[in-house]
Amino acid sequence: MTTHLERELREQPAALERLLERQRGGAERIAALLRRPDVDYVLIASRGSSANAARYAQYVLGRAHRVPVSFATPSLYTIYGQPPRLAGALVVGISQSGRSPDVTEVLEEARRQGRPTVAITNDVASPLAAAADEVLALEAGEEVAVAATKTYLNSLGAVALLFAVATGDKAALAELERVPSQLALQLERSWDDVRRLDLLDDLQGGTVVARGINYATAFEIALKIRELSGLLFEAYSAADLMHGPVAAISAGWPVLAVAPRGPAFAAMGTALDALSQRGARLVVVSDDDGALRRAHVSLPLWTRVPEWLSPLVAVVPGQLAALRLAQLRGIDLDAPLGLSKVTLTR
Amino acid sequence: MTTHLERELREQPAALERLLERQRGGAERIAALLRRPDVDYVLIASRGSSANAARYAQYVLGRAHRVPVSFATPSLYTIYGQPPRLAGALVVGISQSGRSPDVTEVLEEARRQGRPTVAITNDVASPLAAAADEVLALEAGEEVAVAATKTYLNSLGAVALLFAVATGDKAALAELERVPSQLALQLERSWDDVRRLDLLDDLQGGTVVARGINYATAFEIALKIRELSGLLFEAYSAADLMHGPVAAISAGWPVLAVAPRGPAFAAMGTALDALSQRGARLVVVSDDDGALRRAHVSLPLWTRVPEWLSPLVAVVPGQLAALRLAQLRGIDLDAPLGLSKVTLTR
Repeated sequence: MTTHLERELREQPAALERLLERQRGGAERIAALLRRPDVDYVLIASRGSSANAARYAQYVLGRAHRVPVSFATPSLYTIYGQPPRLAGALVVGISQSGRSPDVTEVLEEARRQGRPTVAITNDVASPLAAAADEVLALEAGEEVAVAATKTYLNSLGAVALLFAVATGDKAALAELERVPSQLALQLERSWDDVRRLDLLDDLQGGTVVARGINYATAFEIALKIRELSGLLFEAYSAADLMHGPVAAISAGWPVLAVAPRGPAFAAMGTALDALSQRGARLVVVSDDDGALRRAHVSLPLWTRVPEWLSPLVAVVPGQLAALRLAQLRGIDLDAPLGLSKVTLTR
Repeated sequence: MTTHLERELREQPAALERLLERQRGGAERIAALLRRPDVDYVLIASRGSSANAARYAQYVLGRAHRVPVSFATPSLYTIYGQPPRLAGALVVGISQSGRSPDVTEVLEEARRQGRPTVAITNDVASPLAAAADEVLALEAGEEVAVAATKTYLNSLGAVALLFAVATGDKAALAELERVPSQLALQLERSWDDVRRLDLLDDLQGGTVVARGINYATAFEIALKIRELSGLLFEAYSAADLMHGPVAAISAGWPVLAVAPRGPAFAAMGTALDALSQRGARLVVVSDDDGALRRAHVSLPLWTRVPEWLSPLVAVVPGQLAALRLAQLRGIDLDAPLGLSKVTLTR
């Protein structure tokens, strides 16, 4: 007997492939909105794992047409009833369920102000989809486990597809189309690798760090471990961590570093030096042998993925680490720790 | 003998008063930039405590002229060398030292793109100030302790002054001018109140929550406790916490809730219900008797401050809690835990 969570983790390569096959047209319609001369920036409303996909969009779309991406503050719309003027904005809501009232309210306000709106959701019949001019369906199939896995991965895939289509970069599209098979290999290998975490049997919590494009990955891994195991994991940009919060990293505290090769790798090396000096126990997700050798627990990236797509693969060792840590604690993987699948916040 | 930290905490009312006296003109010049027809939104670059002041700006400036406020992703400028197009942006750097290279780089790029730039800094001779069209000096006087206190408070004061001047709201300005004396009273009372934290002598860490305008306060209190005591404190919006991370809040875990009366108070009540059900030990910062009565440890707000200014006063019990928790642990208050005053990240 297997759990929904394990099944959905394994479905990720097929789900991503389905998204790429079916949503090219949707991505093209949204790319046309991005090119509108009255669009100066993208404003994203999201919560939870979808907010982590939004963090990926901040880096990837920032590099497509060099459009800045910012995040909405839903309470200005809901609690305070003082929504900002949205001149210049393309407004995007990301929500797997499409049922978070505060995310939908941001899109409805954008419509009232005559701004273009986009929904990225797994439910095309949801209130969020109804509030949007264009819908990009996640095509992940039904997700039953409380912890989002394939919908998170497909949210990243949707952003990456939008980048490839918006830039008309055929090489980028070809790189993206190779990801499903690379993802399948990574899943297979990581399933074994995460047994190395059994070494950390006294674990109370940990800190996940990354820089640049994998900032999203750090937040998603921390969230996944936290949701599934109840362990106190947190995430930081390596730069923000150094501006004070590093004070709480004492000898023996686990730090999971997401450090694939690429432009942000050098900055991560500096952070690993500082963390080693403080005596942190390093868990390293990387495709660099040197970085892996520094680790107390190494979680290798087994395939060569271009850096801009690395978040789609680098999250996998983290997802499976979360699964493993929950299993070791005897937690119900499909309904952990009093959480529910849809969270309704205003 | 007293420490720099204690002295600087006590200097806060005088420092705020000095800012309000001296920087009206600076605020007026920046307000004129905000009114420019080509300014659709404000982009802020900042790190650490200054990033928490930026969170306050997101709510307050969002309500002045309804201008949306977003945060820069410095690594797009530095590590990736792919800065976004900044059409429509007024670009603001906040840094007490004015010496964080990544924050300065965002302003320099904005200048290259012909966009208006503003520095909010305690050092008018800093590289950040040199990169800005207009400078708002924090007027906090020299800050020696590693943990920012009076420069944080004056960063909030600068944002509040900018709001009052930009809206031409004389009642708002009068409310702001009352804050220094209210702050003095709050400091005096909180200094005693935080002894109640000695009850929590088995403390390992905690979670700070708020909603709306005090989102900034939650992050600053968590950062201050973490920097000074090394305890593992984290911060969440009450809404984000409910989207998964609440799983790690188990019975007995301390949760510090910032819940002054105002539009966000009802949402905080809902969060307190959920946290109580999980058995969290509540520490409540509030001016509401009912909310204080629910607390394991109550940290009252002693003065009646309008909600938009509540972050300037509500941070005080948190600052003093951080001081108390560090004292109980015998930590050097002026140079805690291997931190340095200026952090240089790229």
